[in-house]
Amino acid sequence: MKIVGADVIVCCPGRNFVTLKITTDEGVTGLGDATLNGRELSVASYLKDHVCPVLIGRDPQRIEDTWQYLYRGAYWRRGPVTMSAIGAVDMALWDIKGKLAGLPVYQLLGGASREGVMAYSHATGRDIPETLEAFAEHREKGFRAIRVQCGVPGMKSVYGVSKKKGAAYEPATKGWPEEQSWSTEKYLDYVPRLFEAVREKFGFDIHLLHDAHHRLSPIEAARLGKSVEDYRLFWLEDLTPAENQEAFRLIRRHTVTPIAVGEVLNTIWDCKNLIEEQLIDYIRMTVTHAGGITHLKRVFDFASLYQVRSGSHGPSDLSPVCLGAALHLDLAIPNFGVQEYMGYHEQTMEVFRCAWRYEDGFMHPGEKPGLGVEIDEALAAKYPYEPAFLPVARLEDGTMWNW
Amino acid sequence: MKIVGADVIVCCPGRNFVTLKITTDEGVTGLGDATLNGRELSVASYLKDHVCPVLIGRDPQRIEDTWQYLYRGAYWRRGPVTMSAIGAVDMALWDIKGKLAGLPVYQLLGGASREGVMAYSHATGRDIPETLEAFAEHREKGFRAIRVQCGVPGMKSVYGVSKKKGAAYEPATKGWPEEQSWSTEKYLDYVPRLFEAVREKFGFDIHLLHDAHHRLSPIEAARLGKSVEDYRLFWLEDLTPAENQEAFRLIRRHTVTPIAVGEVLNTIWDCKNLIEEQLIDYIRMTVTHAGGITHLKRVFDFASLYQVRSGSHGPSDLSPVCLGAALHLDLAIPNFGVQEYMGYHEQTMEVFRCAWRYEDGFMHPGEKPGLGVEIDEALAAKYPYEPAFLPVARLEDGTMWNW
Amino acid sequence: MKIVGADVIVCCPGRNFVTLKITTDEGVTGLGDATLNGRELSVASYLKDHVCPVLIGRDPQRIEDTWQYLYRGAYWRRGPVTMSAIGAVDMALWDIKGKLAGLPVYQLLGGASREGVMAYSHATGRDIPETLEAFAEHREKGFRAIRVQCGVPGMKSVYGVSKKKGAAYEPATKGWPEEQSWSTEKYLDYVPRLFEAVREKFGFDIHLLHDAHHRLSPIEAARLGKSVEDYRLFWLEDLTPAENQEAFRLIRRHTVTPIAVGEVLNTIWDCKNLIEEQLIDYIRMTVTHAGGITHLKRVFDFASLYQVRSGSHGPSDLSPVCLGAALHLDLAIPNFGVQEYMGYHEQTMEVFRCAWRYEDGFMHPGEKPGLGVEIDEALAAKYPYEPAFLPVARLEDGTMWNW
Amino acid sequence: MKIVGADVIVCCPGRNFVTLKITTDEGVTGLGDATLNGRELSVASYLKDHVCPVLIGRDPQRIEDTWQYLYRGAYWRRGPVTMSAIGAVDMALWDIKGKLAGLPVYQLLGGASREGVMAYSHATGRDIPETLEAFAEHREKGFRAIRVQCGVPGMKSVYGVSKKKGAAYEPATKGWPEEQSWSTEKYLDYVPRLFEAVREKFGFDIHLLHDAHHRLSPIEAARLGKSVEDYRLFWLEDLTPAENQEAFRLIRRHTVTPIAVGEVLNTIWDCKNLIEEQLIDYIRMTVTHAGGITHLKRVFDFASLYQVRSGSHGPSDLSPVCLGAALHLDLAIPNFGVQEYMGYHEQTMEVFRCAWRYEDGFMHPGEKPGLGVEIDEALAAKYPYEPAFLPVARLEDGTMWNW
Repeated sequence: MKIVGADVIVCCPGRNFVTLKITTDEGVTGLGDATLNGRELSVASYLKDHVCPVLIGRDPQRIEDTWQYLYRGAYWRRGPVTMSAIGAVDMALWDIKGKLAGLPVYQLLGGASREGVMAYSHATGRDIPETLEAFAEHREKGFRAIRVQCGVPGMKSVYGVSKKKGAAYEPATKGWPEEQSWSTEKYLDYVPRLFEAVREKFGFDIHLLHDAHHRLSPIEAARLGKSVEDYRLFWLEDLTPAENQEAFRLIRRHTVTPIAVGEVLNTIWDCKNLIEEQLIDYIRMTVTHAGGITHLKRVFDFASLYQVRSGSHGPSDLSPVCLGAALHLDLAIPNFGVQEYMGYHEQTMEVFRCAWRYEDGFMHPGEKPGLGVEIDEALAAKYPYEPAFLPVARLEDGTMWNW
Repeated sequence: MKIVGADVIVCCPGRNFVTLKITTDEGVTGLGDATLNGRELSVASYLKDHVCPVLIGRDPQRIEDTWQYLYRGAYWRRGPVTMSAIGAVDMALWDIKGKLAGLPVYQLLGGASREGVMAYSHATGRDIPETLEAFAEHREKGFRAIRVQCGVPGMKSVYGVSKKKGAAYEPATKGWPEEQSWSTEKYLDYVPRLFEAVREKFGFDIHLLHDAHHRLSPIEAARLGKSVEDYRLFWLEDLTPAENQEAFRLIRRHTVTPIAVGEVLNTIWDCKNLIEEQLIDYIRMTVTHAGGITHLKRVFDFASLYQVRSGSHGPSDLSPVCLGAALHLDLAIPNFGVQEYMGYHEQTMEVFRCAWRYEDGFMHPGEKPGLGVEIDEALAAKYPYEPAFLPVARLEDGTMWNW
Repeated sequence: MKIVGADVIVCCPGRNFVTLKITTDEGVTGLGDATLNGRELSVASYLKDHVCPVLIGRDPQRIEDTWQYLYRGAYWRRGPVTMSAIGAVDMALWDIKGKLAGLPVYQLLGGASREGVMAYSHATGRDIPETLEAFAEHREKGFRAIRVQCGVPGMKSVYGVSKKKGAAYEPATKGWPEEQSWSTEKYLDYVPRLFEAVREKFGFDIHLLHDAHHRLSPIEAARLGKSVEDYRLFWLEDLTPAENQEAFRLIRRHTVTPIAVGEVLNTIWDCKNLIEEQLIDYIRMTVTHAGGITHLKRVFDFASLYQVRSGSHGPSDLSPVCLGAALHLDLAIPNFGVQEYMGYHEQTMEVFRCAWRYEDGFMHPGEKPGLGVEIDEALAAKYPYEPAFLPVARLEDGTMWNW
Repeated sequence: MKIVGADVIVCCPGRNFVTLKITTDEGVTGLGDATLNGRELSVASYLKDHVCPVLIGRDPQRIEDTWQYLYRGAYWRRGPVTMSAIGAVDMALWDIKGKLAGLPVYQLLGGASREGVMAYSHATGRDIPETLEAFAEHREKGFRAIRVQCGVPGMKSVYGVSKKKGAAYEPATKGWPEEQSWSTEKYLDYVPRLFEAVREKFGFDIHLLHDAHHRLSPIEAARLGKSVEDYRLFWLEDLTPAENQEAFRLIRRHTVTPIAVGEVLNTIWDCKNLIEEQLIDYIRMTVTHAGGITHLKRVFDFASLYQVRSGSHGPSDLSPVCLGAALHLDLAIPNFGVQEYMGYHEQTMEVFRCAWRYEDGFMHPGEKPGLGVEIDEALAAKYPYEPAFLPVARLEDGTMWNW
């Protein structure tokens, strides 16, 4: 069997997605998600100009060999663009493999380790009361785990909070990157009150999560973790940038609040020390940006040695193809933790037809052979790419900060 | 002052180059190299589609702020595509800064720390006699440091060796990646004889370098280093892949042969432990792939604390703009080691007009304000991009290996 | 270009300052501060007798080479006298470089990373009410960050507290070093009440800093840090002497109160482990005592890898030249934290004419080429050196202690 | 009892010396050496302008209190200028203490632990034969331990080798610092032959020492140590700069050749990790530059915990007062190793009258009360200070290197 086609589909049904479609000489097709929010066309070019030509003629069954071919053969390794491109190829080949086997991909990964996959959603509001309202709504929808974020008095904008009440959260903006302002002091002063309010009103039955979005220094992160231990969080996420993995030692010394990180990491090398030294509890890498199912499964296997669990990133800028792939992995691995799930724009779900489902707090990849996600290319073509940028953040004195 | 233009020039005068040109409202222009061999258009897209639009209107003098804006603001950090794009912007802004100051860039970096920059060249041959011939030629040209590579009996192809005698070495091939074959056993058996032959014939006056091109495991690397100590190499390069920085501990435990690594690394995080733990002696990152002058200077300064010296990568796939930038850094930093220099195709040197020069074993960036390299855009337009791929390597049983 | 003059100016316009003036054959001059409070003439001699003679004839553009020449070439390295002398030369050469480039020094360091530089001032009083008054006054002047110190019942004298209400704080005394008395027990008992009183009266909007001035043992320091976490200090400074960098491990294990240290450190070797092991959050070295802009920038760059921020020492015994140099660095580096600012005696500001300015809590180095500080030598000559000594401290039983 | 006089004597009987003389109200005087080669007047000023005034009126018996007063009370700690000044005061007070007790100082330090103190001398030559000749001469004089250095073919100047055959070695030059050139490659190639020649000609009965004078990188140092193990050196000295104490880990991993370092270190903090981690075998700090007998005894006591022995620096630029003090310490401590001894210029020995003596390979401080060294002030006045500078070294490309 041979690969005879490898096509990149860029579309914007609600938001931008980059999708790779691989076609074999037997007519079987596979899909992979290659979306990198705000840098989409660079990955599309990486695939179209440099990867697709060399896929033609290859045996689609040799997933491992192709992964190594693209990773080692590029010579220039790692990073979000490279690994998203490899991730898309890998996902598409697993999709094909499943279809060839007549089995959903999770069966090829060892079969289901659980009935369903606990998902967490986002409850956000401009202030505490609004967040509590949102929390109640998400609880109504059955979520057992809810991430809470809210506006902070004195700050114009806060990560994860929509500008308009009720509008779906979408950080990227058309035309020009939004410049947000950040004050760690105001945030650290306010956010414990949010958790206190949630626990007071809703008790401890629902897992409570929170994302600091890389804004804190290690000692500030340690202080936050220590100060909110009574609210028993499921995790604190992205407390500080993780390029210097040793930075998490300081946090770890001061608090037993569980720690999650990894949505911006791309390979096992980006988190090896975090895991080996047990500096985190959840690794949040996801299929697209982490080089596909082949590589991410290795990361999760490694994490299991240290009792670190998965907590895959899952915002709506990863396409339904990526979410499908993530759910197959989630269902199969022994050390699953939780899966992020934000839902999708209606137009997105029309373009991508999905076997996966959400029900009462849990998700399932479905039983269709392969990944279980197909794309309506004709419809996709009606939504051309629209340039959009993620925001940037500055401290109040103008210093560039981590968004 | 404002940036009013940011244009990406892709051309192939002898080989492919991606060049960024930034123009200010006062008419000052700056050049940056963004070439990533075999993945050129992905970087071009990263710049053109996602970076250039947000450069317009920015103050070209705020180099640090722009670096942070592109690094932190992308949200997705690190990797060769991202860092080459940032590197090009950074180089171009230093070029502009130098022109505004009326000074060559090395003066802005603290001034010259030496009279000239020792360069090393490549002597390669299909067998030992041919390599010795090449060595003699390079010695004639005045080189004080020469890297030697040669064909290994029983292996069809070896890294760094031209297919045709006398032809300039160019690993990338048009149309399709070459698949090379590799046997560590044959290599380890043969390569010490090469060094022995060189030392026997030419003595110890010239620095001898060698590149294992990531092909060895740590214990094989340790064995090689130990077995060639009598030949007193200047360095052994890229003994084993460096994603797992701790892999070098094993090598380091067994040999005092100096070790160089870094041409595929992109940020300080890729070499932090290598340097901190004194696992290497030379860090080979270069300006384009390492995020520009701003970031690479930080890497070199960090390295100086641990007596690790620079040994910047400098094959002909990095454009003369990158080489110029590297020479400014080389001249200025206290811990310079050596600069790789392969020369350029004649067409390349017609398109890029350079103030830098090579003379009798040493290079110098020249005294023109800025980086001292300009591009002839009209001429460049006559050499359109031609797709080309770096080779891949397989073990003799077909296993994908590191090229 | 050549250095043709290097002159040391010692003057006492309000207090003693040692200033180096370097003159080039093209008439461009540069200033450097070499003031070491209480040991001024030793640095003046180091410069005049041992450094100035060998500066003559050197190229003023080769800043790095000159730095290495003075650091390595002295043979005897490190220490406050040596590094202040080197610092003065380095500052003067950057001043010249900026003037040659027609740019303020911060532009040569990568340009502005923020609009202005947050400064902190000192609110001190003989008791808590007096300190609260002083705090209110500093808040009125716009300071966003205020260090508080106050007298402790039962102790005659406390660091940072003026003898007379309302008088400017000046620790050095003419004629003979004052002997102060110290009781850690009384201090640890009292100082948390000061922070409580400030937070009660003024809330949490203003950054609160405090300096323990090396008086505590590590376990006492840990106890202080832990006991004041509720008052959310910006930092605790100089908790214990830092010659044994590992002493900070004990403090760090017990508290998330941010820690600052460094005003008595002179080289990166004095703080390498403090930073590498994330034992501190702010490094307080300053330009004069830390070998100038060249070396201090290396320290700050190193610190940035570990998310340690700058918090440069800035009492009035460092001359306005040093403050100018510090502000250029502060504006340019990515990891700026805060800048100490005590203001200057009126006579000082007549002798030193400064482009830098303070306004509403923030400082800026100004836009004049070079450092932007000039000295009126004729006026300086009217204020000859007056010997003065810093105080010493003893425990209540007479044991010599750290002042 | 009170100190009533503290005078600084700067003289040049053969070379420059700075001597402190303290006088008590009972007429007892004590001498301390404060010589810092090439930076003499800075220490002289430190003493005269900032220390002597505050000594007046103090009790000369309170040596510890005065040490702490000067070390802690200066506020600005460490470094060669500061510690040499403190060292001179401390030595002078021990001299007085001995005279008051009617005992040689070694008796106050616990009495003699051995009959005499093994000294090593310097055998140097422009080439190997000349060094062998010098070696034979020193052997004749009874030395049991001899340091060998010799010229290296292709290098104009080598550390430790006199310009003229037979002339006493004196590195400092009048008027301007000599610029020497250095090639590690040539040195590493040649120096093992020197040791081979010595061992071949003279056998293994005499301790063989060698000084690399900070010129090697850690891996080069490791290689040297490894390559000369067969010659069983007593020590290799100053292999690489020791500011980064961890640099010695790499050396230590590769060789069992004993390692000595410390002549440029000034406090226990400069060698704490070197000793604690057993990275060296001999600590070479000396009385003057290491803050006197009080501090150096603490260093040696600390070293004894790790079986590190003393090997005090003793060139002729430390005055006979310092050598006397060193010999008292050497005789008393349990972990004495060896004492460097170069002899003195005849004029020097006329100005300083010494109880200490050299005889048949061993030295002894003598039995006179105090340190046993007196100065002839009238004669000293006939030899006024003559500015002189230590050389600097550059690599062959012009890079500043360690002299």
